Amino acid sequence: MKVRELGEDALIAAFAEIYQARAGVLVGIGDDGAVVELRSQRQVITTDIASDGVHFNRVWSHPVDVGAKIAIANLADVYAMGALPRYFTVALACSGDEEVDDLLEIARGIETMARAHGVSIVGGDVVAADQLMISITALGEIQSPVLRSGAKVGDHIFVTQLPGKSLGGLLLLSKGLANIDSVAARMFQRPDFRPEALVDFGFTRMSALMDVSDGLISDLAKIASSSNVGINLDFDEAILSELRELAERAGSTALELFLKSGEEHSFIVVIPQDGLAQVPNEWIRIGVATSGGGITLRGAQLPLSATSWHWQ
Amino acid sequence: MKVRELGEDALIAAFAEIYQARAGVLVGIGDDGAVVELRSQRQVITTDIASDGVHFNRVWSHPVDVGAKIAIANLADVYAMGALPRYFTVALACSGDEEVDDLLEIARGIETMARAHGVSIVGGDVVAADQLMISITALGEIQSPVLRSGAKVGDHIFVTQLPGKSLGGLLLLSKGLANIDSVAARMFQRPDFRPEALVDFGFTRMSALMDVSDGLISDLAKIASSSNVGINLDFDEAILSELRELAERAGSTALELFLKSGEEHSFIVVIPQDGLAQVPNEWIRIGVATSGGGITLRGAQLPLSATSWHWQ
Repeated sequence: MKVRELGEDALIAAFAEIYQARAGVLVGIGDDGAVVELRSQRQVITTDIASDGVHFNRVWSHPVDVGAKIAIANLADVYAMGALPRYFTVALACSGDEEVDDLLEIARGIETMARAHGVSIVGGDVVAADQLMISITALGEIQSPVLRSGAKVGDHIFVTQLPGKSLGGLLLLSKGLANIDSVAARMFQRPDFRPEALVDFGFTRMSALMDVSDGLISDLAKIASSSNVGINLDFDEAILSELRELAERAGSTALELFLKSGEEHSFIVVIPQDGLAQVPNEWIRIGVATSGGGITLRGAQLPLSATSWHWQ
Repeated sequence: MKVRELGEDALIAAFAEIYQARAGVLVGIGDDGAVVELRSQRQVITTDIASDGVHFNRVWSHPVDVGAKIAIANLADVYAMGALPRYFTVALACSGDEEVDDLLEIARGIETMARAHGVSIVGGDVVAADQLMISITALGEIQSPVLRSGAKVGDHIFVTQLPGKSLGGLLLLSKGLANIDSVAARMFQRPDFRPEALVDFGFTRMSALMDVSDGLISDLAKIASSSNVGINLDFDEAILSELRELAERAGSTALELFLKSGEEHSFIVVIPQDGLAQVPNEWIRIGVATSGGGITLRGAQLPLSATSWHWQ
């Protein structure tokens, strides 16, 4: 059934059945706004729009993964501030020609990730538009923010998971070397999102934190420029070995996947010397903050890729 | 200059200059999320998308009014819960073919209304899409919510301002009887938004509260059904006199404008008998909550218009 056949009220009612209120929700979906309880005096607020054909497409991803990935992007922004996510609003624009089942699958994907992180989806909006778009606002509880600007010269740069696979999957899909049901495509469709180790390590031990969103080199450049430091990447080439086969199939190199893969939503964690002893074994040390500007790879300047710009 | 010529980073920087952080903003635009301070343990959250050609168009409204009206819709939702607005996020989707000046004017319209109500715009997103869309999430401080479901039999129904002019202006514009610079068009373009009297009266004295968004009859029906009451409209016909000339020009009737005009963002306030003495003089008593279902006009059942459904 198409959305325009079902109608707005029934669609909203179907969403409201999927989105479950958890602790702290005093008034949920159905009034002029939601009312929630807060456990911290400070709050993180972040918002993202994903538009069909730009941020996702339904040829390369199942609807449930589209929803899950958009939710992950928002969850990652909250964790990347040093906060714990608590509430979402989900606003949806659609043409009316979408299959109702697809939109409900997107909602289930969002709800699955929300549930896994203790997040209640408390409100939203459904409107008519030329194009399917999903806008999520995420709210989180926070004590002390961990900013991009906190890196100091001598601090060590870690990634919580090796970046590269999302771009590998995307290249295979875009070259027709993988289809929507391929194992390799999965790495692009839904990141293996594991922020729990950040919480265990402790946000107060970090000097800077960001999620890998536009790609490692682009995101490192934001930390470097906000913190007024340089970053020298001095990682062991061996860390790239698990990307080599994928890179070869995708017509790329392990280094390129590693440096440029976006939408990974693993984390770049910057840690002072005296915090190194507590770093989890699975985190990967990739470099060090330096007094020189820019991003260098074993001393050689790396060209900074332009920021993502979907209109060009 | 077109948006695609300016580029995403410069556009975001221009927005960040327009949106001013006020008290309580610890981290503003520029990191993974904003961090704000809260003064209440409870919070209202509400979100709205407005899409070009559906919720607004730039033939009938100047961009600054498009922005102001979208901001008003969100502010009204916060006040309508019995809360005070505090923070906005503003996410914008655009094709790249828009004039930069138009988008900055929309932002100035949003900021003007935000400033007037002590709201800080703390974050947002800019993405590429086929169509201009603006999604605002509004956060407010609240003690006790005032719900749609609180009306009791015998309670009195007031409107804080006479509804009707927004539809009058819209009819004139759509029939070519007014242009974008007409005085009459102004009533549609930017509502005369005055929520201050709600705060002065006191939210705790109300049994139910809503803003006039889809039109009086449609919004009253929501209060009636949520509260499990009927509503009998028994207002004096004389209250409609100020709509008569406008209705005649627009080819409508004063009663139709009054009952159906949407996007007014004045308020329906439901007040128990013992609160009547404190009601401000300018509020207009229009009816009473009854034990019978539906909406009646001096005892005669009114047909309920379908909810707004932009796809049909």
